[in-house]
This record gives sequence, C-alpha cells and structure tokens, in this order.
Amino acid sequence: MVGLPARGKSLIAGKAMRYLAWVGIPARVFNVGRYRRHNTPQPSAKFFEPHNEEGEKMRRAAAEAAVSDMLAWFREDQGVVAILDATNSTRERRRWIYESCEKENVETLFVESTCDDEEVIMNNILEVKTTSPDYKGQDPEMAALDFRTRIRNYEQVYETIDENEKHYTYVKLINVGSTVIINQIKDYLSSRLVYYIQNLHIKPRSIWLSRHGESEYNLVGKIGGDSSISERGEAYAKVLPELMRKSGYPPNTKIVIWTSTLKRTIQTARHLAGTPGFGKLEWKALDELDSGVCDGLTYKDIADQYPEDFAARDEDKYNYRYRGGESYRDVVIRLEPIIMELERSENVIIVTHQAVLRCIYAYFLNTPQEQSPWMEVPLHTLIKLTPRAYGTEEQRFKADIPAVSTWRGKGTSAHHQEFPADQK
Amino acid sequence: MVGLPARGKSLIAGKAMRYLAWVGIPARVFNVGRYRRHNTPQPSAKFFEPHNEEGEKMRRAAAEAAVSDMLAWFREDQGVVAILDATNSTRERRRWIYESCEKENVETLFVESTCDDEEVIMNNILEVKTTSPDYKGQDPEMAALDFRTRIRNYEQVYETIDENEKHYTYVKLINVGSTVIINQIKDYLSSRLVYYIQNLHIKPRSIWLSRHGESEYNLVGKIGGDSSISERGEAYAKVLPELMRKSGYPPNTKIVIWTSTLKRTIQTARHLAGTPGFGKLEWKALDELDSGVCDGLTYKDIADQYPEDFAARDEDKYNYRYRGGESYRDVVIRLEPIIMELERSENVIIVTHQAVLRCIYAYFLNTPQEQSPWMEVPLHTLIKLTPRAYGTEEQRFKADIPAVSTWRGKGTSAHHQEFPADQK
Repeated sequence: MVGLPARGKSLIAGKAMRYLAWVGIPARVFNVGRYRRHNTPQPSAKFFEPHNEEGEKMRRAAAEAAVSDMLAWFREDQGVVAILDATNSTRERRRWIYESCEKENVETLFVESTCDDEEVIMNNILEVKTTSPDYKGQDPEMAALDFRTRIRNYEQVYETIDENEKHYTYVKLINVGSTVIINQIKDYLSSRLVYYIQNLHIKPRSIWLSRHGESEYNLVGKIGGDSSISERGEAYAKVLPELMRKSGYPPNTKIVIWTSTLKRTIQTARHLAGTPGFGKLEWKALDELDSGVCDGLTYKDIADQYPEDFAARDEDKYNYRYRGGESYRDVVIRLEPIIMELERSENVIIVTHQAVLRCIYAYFLNTPQEQSPWMEVPLHTLIKLTPRAYGTEEQRFKADIPAVSTWRGKGTSAHHQEFPADQK
Repeated sequence: MVGLPARGKSLIAGKAMRYLAWVGIPARVFNVGRYRRHNTPQPSAKFFEPHNEEGEKMRRAAAEAAVSDMLAWFREDQGVVAILDATNSTRERRRWIYESCEKENVETLFVESTCDDEEVIMNNILEVKTTSPDYKGQDPEMAALDFRTRIRNYEQVYETIDENEKHYTYVKLINVGSTVIINQIKDYLSSRLVYYIQNLHIKPRSIWLSRHGESEYNLVGKIGGDSSISERGEAYAKVLPELMRKSGYPPNTKIVIWTSTLKRTIQTARHLAGTPGFGKLEWKALDELDSGVCDGLTYKDIADQYPEDFAARDEDKYNYRYRGGESYRDVVIRLEPIIMELERSENVIIVTHQAVLRCIYAYFLNTPQEQSPWMEVPLHTLIKLTPRAYGTEEQRFKADIPAVSTWRGKGTSAHHQEFPADQK
C-alpha cells in the first residue's frame, strides 16, 4: 500500500485480504503501525516529523521488522499474497521494498490511494483514526487535531508514484476510484485483484440477506428442486416489506432485490418488489448449490442410497462435490461476479438459498472455509449487513412466522434438526 | 474511439463489438472512414492536412453523417452500445460528440489508444493500413509512405485526453494496455467493457480448440454424464500431440492446455500434457452444458419422456434451459471469465465439450446466437484459430481416426446423424 494517512489504505488492505481468503488464496496483512506501536504505543505528531531522527529510526525499524516477517511468511508458510499496510511514502522506501521482494522472487504490486477531497479525508479521520490504538483513551478532538498534524508531517516528504516508477506494476486510486491508473499488470491474479479494488466504493449502504420463505420441499426435508413456497413461506413473503422497514433503510433511495431464477426466491420477493422504492433483478448465479444426482432426495435417502458420498460430504463439506453437481467451492467461484457487482452497488437485498447465502455471508464476515457450510441461517429471518471501516456490522430480524429447521449437524440425516442452543 | 491512425482503434472497436454481441448486447460500429470514402474513395495524405479546408469540410460531413446515423440507431433500433470509430482527435470534436449524445440521453465513454512504440505503429501500418480500401490496388510501399504522412498531419492537431476532460467517462490505453487510465466509470456495463478492453493484447498467438475424444456415452448416443473415452477416443488422445505439431506452433513457447473437470477431456489431454513445452489447467467453467433431468438420456429418451421440452428446445435452442440444467445462454455467461482470461493469454489449447466449444467458437468467429447451437463441431478434429487485425483465421486438422457423429438436426432424435454435406 502507498498513501498518506487517512486515505483508506487499511480499508482497502482489509477488504482485499478478505476477498482473497474467500476465493481460497492464502493472504495476510502486515501492518507496519502495529510493529511500531510495539515500542512506541502512543506517539504524538512530533514523532512523525521528517527531521525527527529518533522517530525516523524507530519507524524504519518497524518497517524492517514487518518486511522481514512478511518474507519469512512467503518462504516458510506458503503465503501467496502479503499486503504491506503502511504509508510507503517515498520513492526510496518503495525501491527498498521492491528490491527486498525481488531478492526472494516475490512480485510487487503497489496500490496507491490518493485523495484531495477534504470531506472524505475528514470523515476518515473522525470515524477511523480517533478509534485507533494510537489514540486510545484520548480526547477525540485532540486526537483529530494531532492526527492532522501527523498527516502534514507526512505530506512534506510524500512522493506520489509517477513516470519515474513506470517500471513497477502499480495501481493508483484517485479520490476513491473516480480515476484509476493501472500500470504493467502481468498475471491473472493481479488482474483480478486490481479489478476488485477498482470496484470498491465507500458510500454508506447496507446489504440485506434472506433465504426464500419455507418451501414445499423444506416441509418434507427434500433438497434442491424448484418447488413453490409453503403457506407459511407465503406469510413470510407478505411480512418481508414490514421486516425491511423495521430493519431501517434510508428514505428516497432505490433498493434493488436480487433473487435467483428459482420459483421459491421469486415468490418470496414478490410483495417486496411491489413496494415503492424497490427494483428487482434475477441472477442464475444465485441459484442453490446443485446437488446433482441427489437433487430431490432427503438426507436420509442420500445416506441410504449413497452412503459413501454422505460420509465424504460430512468429512469435508466445503470441497465435497455432489455427483454431477457442485461443491461449496464451486459455488464461491460462480458467486465471484455477484461479489464484484455487490461491491459496486449501494443498497441491495438478496433473496436466495441456504448454501449460497452461507457463501455470501462468509465473504462479508470473513468466516473460515471449513466453518461456513455448517453455519446456521434460519428460514424467515432477515440479516442486515452494514460495512464499516474495520469490518461488517450484523443485525438479524426474525419474522414471527414458524418454519421448519433445515440445518443438519455432522453425521445425522434427520429431517428437521435444531441448531444446538449452545452454538448460537 | 480516440487516437491517431494506426493505434489499433478499429481492432479494439471490432473486438468490443464482437464481445458485446456474444454476451447478448446489441452493439454496432459506426466507422467514419467508411462514410468519408463514399465521396472521397482514395484520398492522398494532402486531403488530411490541417489547413486543407476542402478536406476538413468533407471529413466533418462524414463525421456528422456517422453520428446522425448512430443516434438514429439508438432511437429507432433499440441499439445499446454504438462504437464511433474515428480519430476524434481534438477536444472540440469530443465535446461535440458528447453534447450530441447527451441531447438524446446517450452516455458517452471515450476510449483513447495512444502509442509511442514505433515498432507497434509500423507493424500496424504494414499489416493493416496497406490493405485498407483507401489504398486498394496501390503499391504497398508507396501506400505506407503516404500513410505516414497522413499520420503526421493528424499529429499536428492531436490533443490527448487530459485534466481538461476529467468530467468525461473515459479509458486511456497507453502502449497496448501496458498502462491504463480509467476515469469516472459509473455503470456495470461500462465496468465490464473497460475490464475487457484492458485485458486485450496484440502479441501474435493462436488458440486451438478440440472436443474430447469419442466417449463411451457418445457410442450409445447418451448426453451428459462423466464417462471415459472409448478405444477410438484414446487413439485420438494419442495422436493429438502429432496433430498439434502438424498444425504448427512457435518453438520454445509454452502452450497451456485447458480442460474441463470431466474425465473425457482430461483423458484426451493426457498425452499432450506429457509433451515437453505443454502445461495444463482444469476449469469447472469448461464443463459441458448441464442437461439437468435429461443427463444420461439419449435424444430418443428425451423425445419420449419430455416431448414438450424436446420441441421447445428445437424451437429456440439458444435460450432453452433444460429442467434443472442450463441453456446455451447460461453457458455463455459462465464462459465470460474464460474469454477474459483467453484474451489475456497467449498460446492455449482448449479441450472441451460440444456445446461449450460452440460457444467459444461463436465468440471468435462472431457466429449469430441462433446459429451457434446448430453448428457442426466433429469429434477427432483440431481447430486452430489465429486472431488477425480484422477477424479470426481458422484452420481445421482432422485426425484419421473414425468417430460417431454427435450432431443432431432440428426435429430428429437420431443417435448418429451426419451433418448434411451441402451445409459444410
């Protein structure tokens, strides 16, 4: 990362790491500030003055420790993408990073975030930096003032990436992606990552997730298919507009409903789609995990007819691919365009299926791959996700309409098992 | 489009149009040169001198006629993306285009291609421009010389897109995409289009396509499944390295084999993958069109068990989606990342399935949607595609190993019907 403080570097770093982890690429953030805090927990702006030799020495030591740990992680822990989160504000510093990496056959991609929109910078300072460990327990206004001074100290020596560094692979985001400059991208992974980064925005918004209302297949414990919603499912569809209102959404904004192409999600979204302010879109990519030969069977049928498959799936549910069907890993791959489009969008409610919802949820909440297929996502419950600077805020709104449980624990083939209370 | 002559504008315009048509978006190129040739078929470089008033008047008239036709196309023919292929080399000209479009609620995206690599420009002049209608029947060397003079005339007035035009949505490709500047992209379609354009390259290469060798299912006329290749299929797998050699590929280059995740393609690529200079990659997105409930049936079974579906598929094969499965349209959507990656790649051989191969082939050869599902792609035949400036060159190499025909004409449910000789 390259950029002055309060330019959203950590936000971009964090999101990129979450995205990479989600698509299965081992990624890790090395935050130089965290190393520096080891010796200097709460420095004042003075510490960051360009001619403060003591400060400069400490900051250099922190950068060296972070880079050294980063290279060790590549060497010893099969790391694939490391994100060095720091200002890296001079040409000389960047050359040092580039050469340190080159020696170990690690490719460098510089991501610079620049911003001259004072409002964006001020928002960032107020929302993020005053809650930073550097200012813990201090008066927010004093903290903001000190932080502005710190930024000014960096500005004195800051060198933006320009013609002189055109031999580097880099991407430059100007004013939160309103202009993007991409230079010398060579490989597939960088191309995907840069496309992801160029789609990010920081406008406030929420994303709502809901499963379809209870379906006819849910009632009898069958998986897959394209059945209609049950009577209780229809009752949920009817209260969904009210549930959305209760969850709170900004007035006078358009909210787009994304459904799959299967009947049960379209029926569930029907009343909401008729509410003023809502639009709708169907995505084939949101269809339920394809259970291949097991489509239309109950878990008991599967355990009886395909006992080995049933056991293999419990063993590694994320990677298990149904015969002629899909695995969770396959679903994540086909959901990638959905995630890209979600990042570009503002307010969206997604009405979809258990496995697909688990995958989308895992992206936002950074759920480990081995856990996500076992997660409880009850029917008739609206989940509201609100992205914040350092993670995603979650709220759940349960409709007062009963539904069967479709959660299943490892090793059982019960029709309607309850999620254990102690794991909630 | 914006750029001096010989900067690959028509190449980019043509590819973008082909890509849009392939994903189902009505797109059309309006080439101002073609309008100008109406009155001035073979002008000399003198015609393009900045102070040649008569020339300037004619060129302006051509631009006006093209823009007027373009806007009529939006208004009357439900056009979605028009590409105005011309130099559009001054700020004033671009403002005029922007304002003409704005009046009719058409959004403008400027795509500028700049290049200061003399070799690339010279190649472009030699390969493309001397075959242009402007120089038809003329001595190639004289034509090249005249064309250099024409470029110099444009250079005198050329204004690149810069700070002064930052309120426009634009993308600027510098030296064939080695640097890309993206400004103010707002909507999904532009974002996809710009991502496509930024992945293009002009290095010479070929793409080979082959279906898997004859499979056990092919022998009995069944569709789908995950069967192994037959004895004759294995014979094809064995001669594939020799067939590749016969087709010709540059020495000392790496060729990557892409297969699906199904057995019959992996088995077919096995011997080729063991040949020095070849690498391999499996893609789930290259799996055969999912025939849902019809998986494992013969066409006769389908006609018997699902007569209405069978008729509906014949009626509109491109859009027909098998129950619980996919349509050709669905396959195109999941192939989009494959096309993006193919554009970024150099030499690639794809070993895949009939429907998938038809879709990929349709992208390169610009086959209309309604035709592509009926195309003949015989077994045991290697197709070599070589992208050229104005289209794709095709060669077919047939292995001398018999195989059943899997082509099926409209309305029949025969097991092994031959493609009619008069349609070849």
